[in-house]
Amino acid sequence: MTTLDDRRPTPEAPAPVAEPAATVEVSFVTSPEQYRHWRLSVDGEIATLTLDVDEDGGLVPGYELKMNSYDLGVDIELHDAVQRLRFEHPEVKAVVVTSGKERMFCAGANIRMLAASPHSWKVNFCKFTNETRNGIEDASRSSGLPFLAAVNGTAAGGGYELALACEQIVLVDDNSSAVSLPEVPLLGVLPGTGGLTRVVDKRGVRRDLADVFSTTAEGVRGEKAVQWRLVDAVVKARDFDAEVARRAAELAAGSTRPGAGAQGIALTPLRRETTDDGFGYEHVRVVLDRDSGTATVTVLGPSAVPASVEELQAQGDRGWFLAMTRQLDDAILHLRSNEQSIGTWLLRTEGDPATAAASDEFLLGARGHWLVDELIGFYKRTVKRLDTTSRSLFALIEPGSCFVGALAEIALAADRQYMLDGQFEDDERPLPPAVIRLNAFTTGLLPMGNDLTRLQVRFLGSAQELAAAEAAAGRDLLAADADALGLVTAAPDDIDWDDEVRLAIEERASFSPDALTGMEANLRFAGRETPETKVFGRLTAWQNWIFQRPNAAGPDGALRRYGTGKRADYDRKRV
Amino acid sequence: MTTLDDRRPTPEAPAPVAEPAATVEVSFVTSPEQYRHWRLSVDGEIATLTLDVDEDGGLVPGYELKMNSYDLGVDIELHDAVQRLRFEHPEVKAVVVTSGKERMFCAGANIRMLAASPHSWKVNFCKFTNETRNGIEDASRSSGLPFLAAVNGTAAGGGYELALACEQIVLVDDNSSAVSLPEVPLLGVLPGTGGLTRVVDKRGVRRDLADVFSTTAEGVRGEKAVQWRLVDAVVKARDFDAEVARRAAELAAGSTRPGAGAQGIALTPLRRETTDDGFGYEHVRVVLDRDSGTATVTVLGPSAVPASVEELQAQGDRGWFLAMTRQLDDAILHLRSNEQSIGTWLLRTEGDPATAAASDEFLLGARGHWLVDELIGFYKRTVKRLDTTSRSLFALIEPGSCFVGALAEIALAADRQYMLDGQFEDDERPLPPAVIRLNAFTTGLLPMGNDLTRLQVRFLGSAQELAAAEAAAGRDLLAADADALGLVTAAPDDIDWDDEVRLAIEERASFSPDALTGMEANLRFAGRETPETKVFGRLTAWQNWIFQRPNAAGPDGALRRYGTGKRADYDRKRV
Repeated sequence: MTTLDDRRPTPEAPAPVAEPAATVEVSFVTSPEQYRHWRLSVDGEIATLTLDVDEDGGLVPGYELKMNSYDLGVDIELHDAVQRLRFEHPEVKAVVVTSGKERMFCAGANIRMLAASPHSWKVNFCKFTNETRNGIEDASRSSGLPFLAAVNGTAAGGGYELALACEQIVLVDDNSSAVSLPEVPLLGVLPGTGGLTRVVDKRGVRRDLADVFSTTAEGVRGEKAVQWRLVDAVVKARDFDAEVARRAAELAAGSTRPGAGAQGIALTPLRRETTDDGFGYEHVRVVLDRDSGTATVTVLGPSAVPASVEELQAQGDRGWFLAMTRQLDDAILHLRSNEQSIGTWLLRTEGDPATAAASDEFLLGARGHWLVDELIGFYKRTVKRLDTTSRSLFALIEPGSCFVGALAEIALAADRQYMLDGQFEDDERPLPPAVIRLNAFTTGLLPMGNDLTRLQVRFLGSAQELAAAEAAAGRDLLAADADALGLVTAAPDDIDWDDEVRLAIEERASFSPDALTGMEANLRFAGRETPETKVFGRLTAWQNWIFQRPNAAGPDGALRRYGTGKRADYDRKRV
Repeated sequence: MTTLDDRRPTPEAPAPVAEPAATVEVSFVTSPEQYRHWRLSVDGEIATLTLDVDEDGGLVPGYELKMNSYDLGVDIELHDAVQRLRFEHPEVKAVVVTSGKERMFCAGANIRMLAASPHSWKVNFCKFTNETRNGIEDASRSSGLPFLAAVNGTAAGGGYELALACEQIVLVDDNSSAVSLPEVPLLGVLPGTGGLTRVVDKRGVRRDLADVFSTTAEGVRGEKAVQWRLVDAVVKARDFDAEVARRAAELAAGSTRPGAGAQGIALTPLRRETTDDGFGYEHVRVVLDRDSGTATVTVLGPSAVPASVEELQAQGDRGWFLAMTRQLDDAILHLRSNEQSIGTWLLRTEGDPATAAASDEFLLGARGHWLVDELIGFYKRTVKRLDTTSRSLFALIEPGSCFVGALAEIALAADRQYMLDGQFEDDERPLPPAVIRLNAFTTGLLPMGNDLTRLQVRFLGSAQELAAAEAAAGRDLLAADADALGLVTAAPDDIDWDDEVRLAIEERASFSPDALTGMEANLRFAGRETPETKVFGRLTAWQNWIFQRPNAAGPDGALRRYGTGKRADYDRKRV
């Protein structure tokens, strides 16, 4: 990500702003009426997302969003718009992403924002933008909603990375507009929002040409951009709109979306309420314990199941599955951005396993209906956020829980699973013993970023154990069964439960947060890698390293010196 | 990597030593007579490598190598021993790695060494140890030389990672010896020498158990270590030697090595000679230009080709292919460790393409002979070192060069290829125009760490271009042909050559060395990942990030506080 927002020298490097997490609580809730940077318009089967950044609309004070550069606030709107296209506009079959500015598609992430941000903010910002771009690719590939980048001006750094997330890139041929990744030559950092990975792994740009491209600040334009596979077409300005329309119509014609006649679901404002000890929503409760550094996230299972798809449709966003997913997604994003010292999340469910199973069965039986498929896809992306969350995740599987199918995936996404064997004997009216039940959600509908199921990753070492676990689908597994099948890490009884869980939490809190983040990022992704996991593994880890290096982030580093008229002063040693 | 070398508190944290690169020139040349830390013994088909570290034999002053902990010097001996087993001992069919100390197999990398080392030293050290462990796996898998770890005491951190590189791990069952990865709980860093990757990706340890294991400082022993797949067997002390011998014999029985009767090749001391402007060997010359930050590495092609395998055998290590590979390998290691400010390597060859082609043909025709296969395997590993070298690599393909088959791979490993179209007209006796010739070396014998050929990675975007390049094998390709086939980045003529190459070099020298390292690590590894590339990509990049974090390397960080009796003082924010 980068920007070319201001090449004029200024007398001083920007001073770091205060720790944003402390001063700015980030909210991920927005809606089109509130957008300051994007316009969403729908014309029949084609939607257009127009980036027209409000320079003065930065999320944090201290920088101007010049030249269609972006910060987290701009990306929160983009993420919201993609979600609304999925749920509110089933009639849309293709999306055009373009710019409302003259000669500038998007200049990428705002440099002053990056230069002034603490390390944790940069990392968290990049994670969310990566997830949003992955979501765009997922819409193209899983939802029949292909995206087309209509690059009607220069796309630099993160701007080109946004285009790279689209299925097609059409660049205007006006003798000036180019695509570029100027991060290395100008800023001493990487095109880390998927840029390097997508250039070679998605678009198949030859590695030596990718090297030249990624070190050429002014980028590549015209026919060469097509020859190098950086874009799919270059089109003269006078023909640009027509060609974009033609291609969008062609993409729409190949779409599997329902189109005209289908009725969307309005996404009404999400309500997160602060509670005495944390925050909550209708179906998700979060209790924060700052002493132990834990957040207990409890997902409440369904109390009823729609009788038909028509009823599901009529429920709109009040229906349990969509409402729960939205709330869980928001809770994850909120905790990540605003509660960085909460290092361990305890993942729980409460509810009736039979009703949860019936809810799954209903959804499984209605697959193929656009709304049901979107619901499952949204839930898939939400659980994937857990995989890339830099927090330790422990699932607590207790009496009264409903870890069935879709909800069981939350437990499987955790680093460890603790399951109580039996009941809490001290309870006056002991809740029924916990069960785990697997189903088709477990065995294929919710793949990780590496395209493997969490069961496949878990049992990478034994096809037999994998088969045994898969064969147990449909059965209620008590703690002893789940333990024998390798689905849980430990199954203590009532006597040992408190000590075992407490000690695990205390121990976790005593470790280096950085080492835990690195460890979890390696252990969670056993097995094959895909471009998506390479973005979070190889690319992001290198970028985070560079974000810590004085050559980038130090007072004389490239990020801090950009725009000052002074060149960065590099330590030339290769590491 | 880690050690448990000294748990007694000491009054002060170790002070950083002076930059080793400046004070200690690292030499990778050694031989069994000089070993201070390893014993290599051969008994028929079975070799035994015994680790018995000399506490006072550290490579750099300032630490003691207690409890069989290691530093770079220990690993240089291990690397040498593995090479000698390959070439000097074709009769050996299995290798046992064990310890000469009581109750301690290996405590891993020495912590005082790590704590006192600058960032660049840590990174370079880890890279070499990773390559050595990959070499052990390569011996097991490609050379019919399987390794067995006879873990006759505790294997902690890097000690267990050494065992993980072996095909089998047998742990003594004595109620105290354990395998462990205590890096996260004790040191705030990762088991970064393949530990996290091999646990889940190679051995298939369940991810939640791997999480427990990697956060349990004391490790796991006994039957549990087998159940968790951490080791292949635990054996009572009284039966240990017999069981190790039985398993080694079993491994040897399955080996494809020639065994008794085959004649080894003695590896005589390598001579690197300092020259006015760099250093050199018989077949490799290196010219250093500190102003431009370049090393020009020229490989001299063969002047003759053996008439038979018998002649090849008789030549011993004087034969061109082996001598050249040893020299190139040493040049790479020397430049990496001792010339860190030389950021760009210019890769050249000189020689007769026809003779180079004949040399390749001879080797290709003699495949299946153990010596020929070892030669090709060694060359494969040497070119792989280029892929993971944190320097910019430009191939200069000029008149008089011999980029044929095996040698052409050096060009394909580079980030860019510059090929002169025509001749240098000013030369009094112009050399013949450069050609590139591909052959079976290009199309399968020299895979990268991701198991793809460099051509497959290069043409990931087009099966057609890949097929065209492969179909050109056997033909001498002039610059225009090579350019048309996509084998070179640029093919300037005599008039443009100097400016184009000079500008590329100057530009490279102006960029952030860190950003270049990160960029190259991403662009070089398009396509699928394997455990080997995951070690260098995902795991190493995260480790390098952690090595920069105050929680590990700062004055109050875990690495620096280890052994002082004071706990690390962590910033608890999760990033």
